[in-house]
Amino acid sequence: MARLIGMHTHDVRFPTSRTLDGSDAMNPDPDYSAAYLRLVTDAGDGLEGHGFVFTIGRGNDVQVAALRALEGFVVGREVEATLADLGGVWRELVHDSQLRWLGPEKGVMHMAVGAVVNALWDLRAKRAGQPLWRLLASLSPEEIVGLVDFRYLSDALTREEALEILRRAEPGRAEREGRLLAEGYPAYTTTPGWLGYDDEKLARLCREAVVEGFSQIKLKVGGDLVDDTRRLGIAREAVGPGVRIAVDANQRWDVAEAIRWIEALRPFDLAWVEEPTSPDDVLGHAAIARAVAPVPVATGEHAANRVVFKQFLQAEALSVVQLDATRVAGVNENVAILLLAAKFGVRVCPHAGGVGLCEAVQHLAMFDFLAVSGSVEERMIEFVDHLHEHFVTPVDVRHGRYHPPLAPGAGTEMHPQSIEEYTQTPDQCAAG
Amino acid sequence: MARLIGMHTHDVRFPTSRTLDGSDAMNPDPDYSAAYLRLVTDAGDGLEGHGFVFTIGRGNDVQVAALRALEGFVVGREVEATLADLGGVWRELVHDSQLRWLGPEKGVMHMAVGAVVNALWDLRAKRAGQPLWRLLASLSPEEIVGLVDFRYLSDALTREEALEILRRAEPGRAEREGRLLAEGYPAYTTTPGWLGYDDEKLARLCREAVVEGFSQIKLKVGGDLVDDTRRLGIAREAVGPGVRIAVDANQRWDVAEAIRWIEALRPFDLAWVEEPTSPDDVLGHAAIARAVAPVPVATGEHAANRVVFKQFLQAEALSVVQLDATRVAGVNENVAILLLAAKFGVRVCPHAGGVGLCEAVQHLAMFDFLAVSGSVEERMIEFVDHLHEHFVTPVDVRHGRYHPPLAPGAGTEMHPQSIEEYTQTPDQCAAG
Repeated sequence: MARLIGMHTHDVRFPTSRTLDGSDAMNPDPDYSAAYLRLVTDAGDGLEGHGFVFTIGRGNDVQVAALRALEGFVVGREVEATLADLGGVWRELVHDSQLRWLGPEKGVMHMAVGAVVNALWDLRAKRAGQPLWRLLASLSPEEIVGLVDFRYLSDALTREEALEILRRAEPGRAEREGRLLAEGYPAYTTTPGWLGYDDEKLARLCREAVVEGFSQIKLKVGGDLVDDTRRLGIAREAVGPGVRIAVDANQRWDVAEAIRWIEALRPFDLAWVEEPTSPDDVLGHAAIARAVAPVPVATGEHAANRVVFKQFLQAEALSVVQLDATRVAGVNENVAILLLAAKFGVRVCPHAGGVGLCEAVQHLAMFDFLAVSGSVEERMIEFVDHLHEHFVTPVDVRHGRYHPPLAPGAGTEMHPQSIEEYTQTPDQCAAG
Repeated sequence: MARLIGMHTHDVRFPTSRTLDGSDAMNPDPDYSAAYLRLVTDAGDGLEGHGFVFTIGRGNDVQVAALRALEGFVVGREVEATLADLGGVWRELVHDSQLRWLGPEKGVMHMAVGAVVNALWDLRAKRAGQPLWRLLASLSPEEIVGLVDFRYLSDALTREEALEILRRAEPGRAEREGRLLAEGYPAYTTTPGWLGYDDEKLARLCREAVVEGFSQIKLKVGGDLVDDTRRLGIAREAVGPGVRIAVDANQRWDVAEAIRWIEALRPFDLAWVEEPTSPDDVLGHAAIARAVAPVPVATGEHAANRVVFKQFLQAEALSVVQLDATRVAGVNENVAILLLAAKFGVRVCPHAGGVGLCEAVQHLAMFDFLAVSGSVEERMIEFVDHLHEHFVTPVDVRHGRYHPPLAPGAGTEMHPQSIEEYTQTPDQCAAG
């Protein structure tokens, strides 16, 4: 009986701050990084499970330490039994009474659980010879709800309601898979909009986005209103009237300031306003959403867990759910978030970019289309065109659409030479 | 000019799980621990700044790794200038753009900032020759609001409103300090109520609490309703009708279950119900509070930051604010939370127990009495009688009251021999 015999961790950092890729109002100089892990078995099939937490540099070592704290929960387990009960494994990791104190269910420790869970899904998908999106969509409604922990959700979504949502999506699944394979899943691009780019580069990248077939772009805002107005004008002129423009404030504002700023930008016909304030502020987002309607409010990449998403939906505080592949506790919790969004009838437009987030999150959006919401209406996955070359199965984005990966796995595997080249020597061990 | 020349960290763990001290419905076997740090200067005065994050065992090493990630922000600084601008230092640590990604403002990284901030306050108070409560109360309203970051708070509390609250509390401060020194600050005890204790021990400890002068005790509930009912009956009989009994569910319930359970326990005249559900669930607590009124709802020991407290208050979701000395980013953020509570007219009854939490948090409650709310009406600090012997300035709790510490510092300094005896050898460095 094969067992999990090793968890190897790597502190991988890319020096992106040199080019200001990824610069926004709150993150002026990120170094896109991954606290990375590989699960090894003795099955003799050469298959490993890979997962990671995306960070933006400093503290990636802390995130690696959190991964290591989970080693004892994973190494030594039987492979088959573990992969057959990922709902149970999720509960065991998230609800460990001692580790739970460090969150609970938020921040470094919760994201570490997510990386382990995602690595287990990567391994399961590889062993099944399926891309994760197809593996998930092939599960029965009962198997899918078995992945979800309904603790703290039952006032908004019960197991029975989740089953009902999944059963409603069963008819037409094969037809939708055909459509997905033929046409891909819609994407939008954030590549033109980083704050660190000058006007000329902004205009050029906007024009390129149109040529590449994107029907929506996104601009970072929130640094300076005069700059934002000028940049939005440049972008609107470059893309023309038919392409949507979303803006992203990266948590820069308080409530009243957000409302004033968005009012000032309203003439540019905003597709949505993203992260207007603290990602913890459900009531603040609700106040902003009421004031700026009908401009949609979007958030989620920093929403700590399903309980926070539940409240955003209950409070009608957002109309675009931007789940993230590595912020919450992995695939299982994102399945819960997809079900919550479906229950409340709110569209999901996943956050991506960073390191490997596009590769990972596309599986969740495609699963949602096949088995949960059954829709791509006004839905898009974020796309940012960097660091894909480090992944074994890089995204295939053409004509403004993600074309589904067919290789087995969850998309989370980095090339060994990339891991080696960009791994930092640990320095957190120089104890006092 | 003296500088901070070292930050030494220690992974300190006490084997409390052997005695089931601290056992509750979510935490059956905690090993009370501290991710501990000492700041050393070259001032030649022998004074160090001590701070820690309380954890319950596994993961204490992750918390230590997070402390170490902050070393570069502290070591090398000028002592005087740093301690004179702890508002600025707080902002620098909390808003570091890269580390912020790991929260933001929550979990392991945020608590690590809190430990560093608290250690700086400990050093500042020692250099001033004052206990922290008196040092804080001696600051002007302008100096106090300078400690607070109003980002994300301004829809509920502005700088001007905070100043107004502080100025209103200036008259009578000397009289209140006299009262505090003479009478102490009210306490309640959780010592009798751990779930792991048998009925005989429960009854005995309840009777002892009355003899010791406590007018409120707290029982852990949420494991089993039949047990809870029996244990509450035993406790009520042991303490008599004049002593209040609060119950603490430690996040055990969903919303509907919480309401049902509290209804069933209502005949026992509950002083409050604590942590009925997820500490992230503002709207859930609000629903519970409406349904179980007039039973007060209490929470806070796991509330991640001031933005979460703000919403609990805005939503009328709690009537007892249970701030914690090491959950948020230290003294500064707790000053913000005290000001929020005062603005909304909600009483503060700090969470304590654990390792050193009583020693640390009493300073905040006493500062609140002198300089913020000006009241001890229905206010109490939690007291649990263990592990105090490890601290240089252990709490002085007599006749059901905390008597204010007079030794300089923030109460956070552990005896060197305790640190040495209970420090674990780091194992997080056995990298993959």
